Amino acid sequence: MSYGQYGPPRHQGYAAPPPPTYGNQGYYQQQQQARQGPQVPAGADPQLWSYFTAVDADRSGAISVTELQQALVNGNWSKFDLDTVKMLMSIFDTDRSGTINFTEFAGLWKYISDWQNVFRHFDRDRSGSIEGRELAEALRSFGYNLSPPLLALIEAKYASEPVSGYGPPPGITFDRFVRACVAVKTLTEAFQRVDTDRDGWVQINYEQFMSIVLSAP
Amino acid sequence: MSYGQYGPPRHQGYAAPPPPTYGNQGYYQQQQQARQGPQVPAGADPQLWSYFTAVDADRSGAISVTELQQALVNGNWSKFDLDTVKMLMSIFDTDRSGTINFTEFAGLWKYISDWQNVFRHFDRDRSGSIEGRELAEALRSFGYNLSPPLLALIEAKYASEPVSGYGPPPGITFDRFVRACVAVKTLTEAFQRVDTDRDGWVQINYEQFMSIVLSAP
Repeated sequence: MSYGQYGPPRHQGYAAPPPPTYGNQGYYQQQQQARQGPQVPAGADPQLWSYFTAVDADRSGAISVTELQQALVNGNWSKFDLDTVKMLMSIFDTDRSGTINFTEFAGLWKYISDWQNVFRHFDRDRSGSIEGRELAEALRSFGYNLSPPLLALIEAKYASEPVSGYGPPPGITFDRFVRACVAVKTLTEAFQRVDTDRDGWVQINYEQFMSIVLSAP
Repeated sequence: MSYGQYGPPRHQGYAAPPPPTYGNQGYYQQQQQARQGPQVPAGADPQLWSYFTAVDADRSGAISVTELQQALVNGNWSKFDLDTVKMLMSIFDTDRSGTINFTEFAGLWKYISDWQNVFRHFDRDRSGSIEGRELAEALRSFGYNLSPPLLALIEAKYASEPVSGYGPPPGITFDRFVRACVAVKTLTEAFQRVDTDRDGWVQINYEQFMSIVLSAP
């Protein structure tokens, strides 16, 4: 399947990710709670179904935003930030029902697993967060050769804490790392669509400018 | 005092805000906990000092990011989102210590009080959140006459829940309303600085474009 403009990068400079593994990744608080959900639908992956029913806390048959936010946690157990959850809903709630059904969940789960592999690959020091050098390397491997000032802006904007004048900037947790990468991709592609002669310059009006910026996650 | 580019709008189309009142606003979870903090420093407003010591939970004499996040809640008791807290720290942690001292806190408190007055003024239906029409009116009164498509993008981006295909878009809570207004202001002013001949068009390169976007809160 394709995630369109939101996907993990296709042209990967890093080793091809291993097939996603669905267990023990620490991102689903509730996955360990073995539960007797409704029967596995015909053709459904039983393991995936068990994750789905674990996240669907009220057993309504669909995952609400609240349930998704309860389930999605970073390596340090902090919840995913709202803007990342909203981005995930905008990608995977394809029928715009406001909830995630089992079919949509399969896509969401694979997407997060793919990004987890990317995150783990670039979290070289296994700190659980992406620091400046790791961020630069990740973006470079995705094909974005950004200047040091831009990298510093991204590092500060998506850091999981405010940046103070002392010590290195705080790292970027998983949720914000995914959002940062998707934002860079979305903004760059939007710029390139306007830059039809590919000279690195665009002429745009205020409406176009604001529209591009406000459409990025 | 001036908040520079981050301030509540100066040219207000709405009634001049009343002087800030510092009590019973529901934004400080801990303000009701009467506490015996350190002695009020000479010249300090005793009421403001009592709020400061209430937020400074570990009595270190300075407010950490964590303490600030614990203290700042919206009308519906949801915590301020991280990006708004980071924005506040970037404005008010003027000595870049990573914490807010009492002097910095006085500015922060006034800023939030001013924005609360703005928020309450435009929350016409007293729902505790800003909906589409209220947002349009607020931005218009600040001098931003945005097109309906841009207003819809802002409404969706800063909504406090994902937008589904059913029903009206969810509203914008206080924290995200402040961030939305500051973002529109920052982006518009950055565009205008490049648009030196004021014809509504700019010619910018990728580096400038990304730098403007990533510098907005």
